Amino acid sequence: MDAAGTYSLADIKSLETPKALRAAIRRGQYTGHTTGLAPGSVQGNVVILPLGWAEEFLRFCEANPKPCPVLAVGEPGSPSLPHLGEDIDIRIDVPRYRVFREGVEVETPTDIAHLWRDDFVTIVLGCSFTFEHALLDAGLKIHHIDANKNVPMYVTNIETVATERFKGPMVVTMRSFKPRDAIAAVQITSRYPKVHGAPIHIGFPEAIGLHDLTQPDFGDAPDLEPGELPVFWACGVTPQLALERARPPLSITHFPGHMLVTDIQNADLVSSS
Amino acid sequence: MDAAGTYSLADIKSLETPKALRAAIRRGQYTGHTTGLAPGSVQGNVVILPLGWAEEFLRFCEANPKPCPVLAVGEPGSPSLPHLGEDIDIRIDVPRYRVFREGVEVETPTDIAHLWRDDFVTIVLGCSFTFEHALLDAGLKIHHIDANKNVPMYVTNIETVATERFKGPMVVTMRSFKPRDAIAAVQITSRYPKVHGAPIHIGFPEAIGLHDLTQPDFGDAPDLEPGELPVFWACGVTPQLALERARPPLSITHFPGHMLVTDIQNADLVSSS
Repeated sequence: MDAAGTYSLADIKSLETPKALRAAIRRGQYTGHTTGLAPGSVQGNVVILPLGWAEEFLRFCEANPKPCPVLAVGEPGSPSLPHLGEDIDIRIDVPRYRVFREGVEVETPTDIAHLWRDDFVTIVLGCSFTFEHALLDAGLKIHHIDANKNVPMYVTNIETVATERFKGPMVVTMRSFKPRDAIAAVQITSRYPKVHGAPIHIGFPEAIGLHDLTQPDFGDAPDLEPGELPVFWACGVTPQLALERARPPLSITHFPGHMLVTDIQNADLVSSS
Repeated sequence: MDAAGTYSLADIKSLETPKALRAAIRRGQYTGHTTGLAPGSVQGNVVILPLGWAEEFLRFCEANPKPCPVLAVGEPGSPSLPHLGEDIDIRIDVPRYRVFREGVEVETPTDIAHLWRDDFVTIVLGCSFTFEHALLDAGLKIHHIDANKNVPMYVTNIETVATERFKGPMVVTMRSFKPRDAIAAVQITSRYPKVHGAPIHIGFPEAIGLHDLTQPDFGDAPDLEPGELPVFWACGVTPQLALERARPPLSITHFPGHMLVTDIQNADLVSSS
């Protein structure tokens, strides 16, 4: 910690429990990204909406569970999420937020206490950090992690199931593997339906409208080696695009990569079905 | 049934229980292939060897569980397999057998009572009929079944794990699917480790030594449509090749496609792990 009471990434990495990490974030001592922090703990995508919009957004998520896997929903007006962590206060426990008015980003604050309203509902969605952890545990190599890059993301020609105001294309992440590891990746991620689950496509990018994998729509260009199959998973950016297009009067999300760190363990999300 | 007491394929298809089917086979009233018969019942590959050879063959199977998934092993000298069906008599319950001396086929009888010995051990291996049943149940199309052909089989450049006398290349079956169905096929067959389990390869035939899929080593040439991925599973022909090469003084197997029909249900082989 420096003289101003701010944690470096090294400092924050020494905090092993999600609770200690959230406490540092809550005190404003850490405002960075959460990649690789509190290993083994589930991190979540955050969407906060006024009640009427939240209800429809939840219906959109339930119609599109692969890109929008709901982990938890808060009570209207309550900043608590007791199923994800007893002490969570969603107004101050995320390192950085994005605030949208009519679908346009207007600020990226480190807390949203000043914006909180009695009709706000918090929705937390699963994130691929959980299944990447499981893939690494199984000994698979993930190129963008090895290269310390962001995962490549692409806007596909697959349409989500629309509600009245939420609609749009499915966004996918891509990770490439040798055939044997691609099979293992299907098996492993199938066990995690709460964090996008099994891939939605493998092998032929053109079939989902992707004509140049070297030009991702978000994230970094991939390293695709000869003899590897590109494998595509539904991505949590899908609901963000739908949200921007729907232009609710006010909405708040986490800042990319700056997730809610929960007390749930990745292993708790393994499906036995 | 005709005047000679022989069942036609239509007759035999009307026998719904595996026990009734085995009874007809036992009486010599049916000597044909068992594809599609007693739907839902597990069918098995049969290998019968003298004790010393059987012990080593079992070690070979355990070292190579994907091509050689052991379903049951009989007691030395006993023609019973109580775990697969209370009344099974392996000397007379398979429609047709192959008898090998020194690795060379010498006869293809419809019973082997005249050959039975006190040191014979029966080994029954799982067969892909079980997982094909599960794939069809899930709504996937399997080209060779639609075309009423045999599955294409290929000798790969993947070596099995050898024992002293058993060794050789892995043989695979190929089924091709659109990417989404290929993912489902990985998921579904992963649940059946006792019948070859998950695929061993997907996408790049050259990587496993296969340069022309239109020329299978066994079975019929496939219909591979554009936009489909070839998916490869370990095949029960693998142990047959190893057996022929090892040249035991006497060995007996089922005749291809003429399997042991058991009382176990396909659903009983679903792994919960």
